[in-house]
Amino acid sequence: MKPASALIALTCAALTFASGGPAHAGDRVTAPEAARQVFPEFIEFLKIPNVMHLSVEDMQRNADWLEAAFRRHGFDARQLEDGETPMVFAQAADPSPDRKTVLFYAHMDGQAVFPKEWDQPDPFTPVLKQRGAGGEWSPIALESLTGSAPVDPEWRLFARSAADDKAPIMMLIAAMDMMRANGTEAAINIKIIIDSHEEGGPPTLKDVVARNRELLRADAVVMLDGPMHASNNPTLVFGHRGGMGFELKVHSANNDVHSGHFGNFAPDPSFALAHLLSTMRAPDGRVLIPGFYDGVDMNPGMKAVLAAVPDDEAAIRKRIGIAESEHVGDNYQEAMNYPTFNITSMIAGEPGSRRSIIPAFAAARVSSRTVPGTPPARQLALVRNWVEAQGYHLVDGEPTEEERLKYPLLASITGGGGMSALMTPLDAGVGKWAASAMRREFGVDPVRIPIMGGGVPTQPLANGLGAPILLVPLVNADNNQHAANENLRIGNFEAGVRTLRALFTQDLSAGD
Amino acid sequence: MKPASALIALTCAALTFASGGPAHAGDRVTAPEAARQVFPEFIEFLKIPNVMHLSVEDMQRNADWLEAAFRRHGFDARQLEDGETPMVFAQAADPSPDRKTVLFYAHMDGQAVFPKEWDQPDPFTPVLKQRGAGGEWSPIALESLTGSAPVDPEWRLFARSAADDKAPIMMLIAAMDMMRANGTEAAINIKIIIDSHEEGGPPTLKDVVARNRELLRADAVVMLDGPMHASNNPTLVFGHRGGMGFELKVHSANNDVHSGHFGNFAPDPSFALAHLLSTMRAPDGRVLIPGFYDGVDMNPGMKAVLAAVPDDEAAIRKRIGIAESEHVGDNYQEAMNYPTFNITSMIAGEPGSRRSIIPAFAAARVSSRTVPGTPPARQLALVRNWVEAQGYHLVDGEPTEEERLKYPLLASITGGGGMSALMTPLDAGVGKWAASAMRREFGVDPVRIPIMGGGVPTQPLANGLGAPILLVPLVNADNNQHAANENLRIGNFEAGVRTLRALFTQDLSAGD
Repeated sequence: MKPASALIALTCAALTFASGGPAHAGDRVTAPEAARQVFPEFIEFLKIPNVMHLSVEDMQRNADWLEAAFRRHGFDARQLEDGETPMVFAQAADPSPDRKTVLFYAHMDGQAVFPKEWDQPDPFTPVLKQRGAGGEWSPIALESLTGSAPVDPEWRLFARSAADDKAPIMMLIAAMDMMRANGTEAAINIKIIIDSHEEGGPPTLKDVVARNRELLRADAVVMLDGPMHASNNPTLVFGHRGGMGFELKVHSANNDVHSGHFGNFAPDPSFALAHLLSTMRAPDGRVLIPGFYDGVDMNPGMKAVLAAVPDDEAAIRKRIGIAESEHVGDNYQEAMNYPTFNITSMIAGEPGSRRSIIPAFAAARVSSRTVPGTPPARQLALVRNWVEAQGYHLVDGEPTEEERLKYPLLASITGGGGMSALMTPLDAGVGKWAASAMRREFGVDPVRIPIMGGGVPTQPLANGLGAPILLVPLVNADNNQHAANENLRIGNFEAGVRTLRALFTQDLSAGD
Repeated sequence: MKPASALIALTCAALTFASGGPAHAGDRVTAPEAARQVFPEFIEFLKIPNVMHLSVEDMQRNADWLEAAFRRHGFDARQLEDGETPMVFAQAADPSPDRKTVLFYAHMDGQAVFPKEWDQPDPFTPVLKQRGAGGEWSPIALESLTGSAPVDPEWRLFARSAADDKAPIMMLIAAMDMMRANGTEAAINIKIIIDSHEEGGPPTLKDVVARNRELLRADAVVMLDGPMHASNNPTLVFGHRGGMGFELKVHSANNDVHSGHFGNFAPDPSFALAHLLSTMRAPDGRVLIPGFYDGVDMNPGMKAVLAAVPDDEAAIRKRIGIAESEHVGDNYQEAMNYPTFNITSMIAGEPGSRRSIIPAFAAARVSSRTVPGTPPARQLALVRNWVEAQGYHLVDGEPTEEERLKYPLLASITGGGGMSALMTPLDAGVGKWAASAMRREFGVDPVRIPIMGGGVPTQPLANGLGAPILLVPLVNADNNQHAANENLRIGNFEAGVRTLRALFTQDLSAGD
């Protein structure tokens, strides 16, 4: 799995974003210059490992570093206790009651890493790379980012959280620096919350919001997370899928048994799981569980909005290296507006070993994304009912010996719960405000995406603050988020600084 | 997975074997006494780790220990070079040209261990256990085996290779000790070869036989491997399945991709694998690949022989904790006479992690056992053809980007090769000879099993020496061979000594 092959296909050449030039001719400090000034700190930030389950101490170091960084750059900042490791809150000085307040959300924690899958020794030692004529990525000196020679916007910085989600945090800081350097006045009050439990550990945002409702109160929330549209044009996202995760386990013998002495006699749990899974999804990806798609709102108006998104599906297929996509919905955007049913991992026996056994069980970890009309709890109930309808007896945890001898088909489903989907109306004021700022800065209408495929923890903010929520993604779509060789395109950092400066200087009460 | 639950069901109470008493009233040293005398050495032997891929040095220690042990007990012994670590050859002193020669085969190496699955700290530190009234196993002092108090034949010794296959080696030594102590004359010339590459590493027996044909020459070969019939009655096995192993891998995107942003778009390789596997086997275990069972010889005569084996299938099901077996053949013995198609391990993504990804591939490691009429190479070709017939393009190793973009369904099959099945005619002289010895010692006809489910490397001996081959299994059927909590029932050690002494004193030229 070479990142070169994963990335070779996408052209990040949207004109508005490839250029680093200022939109305001009078700027003394341009966005690329503001970016360059924070890159050393960005690199320092990326060097602090941020996988919650690996080290709570490292997460505390992230919070400490961030609080200090916000203060260095003129923000009021503090840590918000949340039991395990704190979140960080920051606020631009001198808020005015005459201005509307916008709360910007990002997160400091990252997904787990498997270093052997990366094309660099350590995901927490950032590597700057440039792409050769053959599409291959090769390292260049990290100092190229911070020296006086021009920075190529096509360079990429590879590290865990380089894109998801430390980059937007540093863009916030750089945008504020740029405003201050140029003497630009903000048109909104700026609040920032940096989550510490977005990717790992039990989510704590709900409690933190409940304990800090006054502090966090805002007229709108802007979530800086997720990738921009693949065209790399300015992007507004009005919602996201929710989701639930569970483990589906098929139980066979009470122990691994010898595949010679029991082959053709002991039920093979991997084949049983395969048969069960095959009843759940057609080969084209459509889920066969009755009722699974009930509540999906795919009306003609929505279809038109989705069709207007300028996706290059051939380019997406080429980027991820597939000849054909699944066929849920008529296009990529429609696909994102249906619930999913994917297996994130599957296990039977001891992979890598050649033990001649029939394993005692086979298990699949399922990630099922939801949309606003398909709540997680209902979806899980549909799955449980379906498994039972296939003749399985569902047990909690391991079956007892009595259950093993009574039921030919035994399975367990553990987990569930999950996150709600969200969609802010496409005509909400917060969307008009952001679109105006983007048009002003880049001279183009942003791409409007009703629902993006990934999840963001909007629920605690939506429920706790009662403010409308908009997602403004700033990083390149091909950032290998959550996987090996995560990276940030440098040009996106510069454009992100411009986007945030434009939002900072756009009056939320003015309307479109 | 408690061994208690795995073992609770089997009654090892066949009268002839439960009794430790001598068949020959004149024996000064009984089989239990001969056993007791070698138990300290047996325990010492089990403490030497014997997993080839873990340590070649440990395998050499096994060979050195064995050579010395055979010499201590009056055998001529030497190591037979085979490139990596040697095999050990031993021979009873004073062979006579007037007697037929029998070569006994066993192996010193063991299957891989996963200590966390064991109910003892270290699979290479043997633990003696007795079963409580509730069926649970609890440790007792190892010294109970070697002291002067009576030894309970129902005790079990738990360790890797306690049954498979170090026990038969120590039984050979004890049987010879018993003969010598009682002044009993052998009726055959006794040769012994102890393989070092049966469970792991590339098999080397073929080369060793080729280089030592004269040394190993014999009129019959007796393989001391595999479990006795579950009734624990004296057992003769005339053949065994062969087999092949391969990995079937379904390729999807060129990298793991985010399950949110690509769910419903990027093909899910686990579901693709599930669909493919579902075409290969019916839920009852019967393989659906055309031609897979061609050559299976299930004639009425064979069905009658198989039906005569006194299997207690309810007990087998109870022992391994299943309500229903697969339905290949009309009974357990018939099932062993059909080729198998099992998944020994399956993997997609990173089990244990909660990364929200759609994995780049899903893979199953297949163990397909064969019978004499279904040669491995043909079976593998049938599988490859079937996968292609399902629309898959087969690649060698990883697909190229060109292949990824060209073929919607991509798979690879690696491995194959494997071991041939064998069956010695049920009326061969070697079978009559062994049956006579068993009847003389135990007063019952042995259970005759035409083909046992597991594989044994008979091919190099059959081809290289041209002698008929018989399998004489000596260890309890519920020994958890190849899995965690492998164990030997002490009564089986004592009975095994009697069996071997009976064979040593049976004239091979005399017929039935």
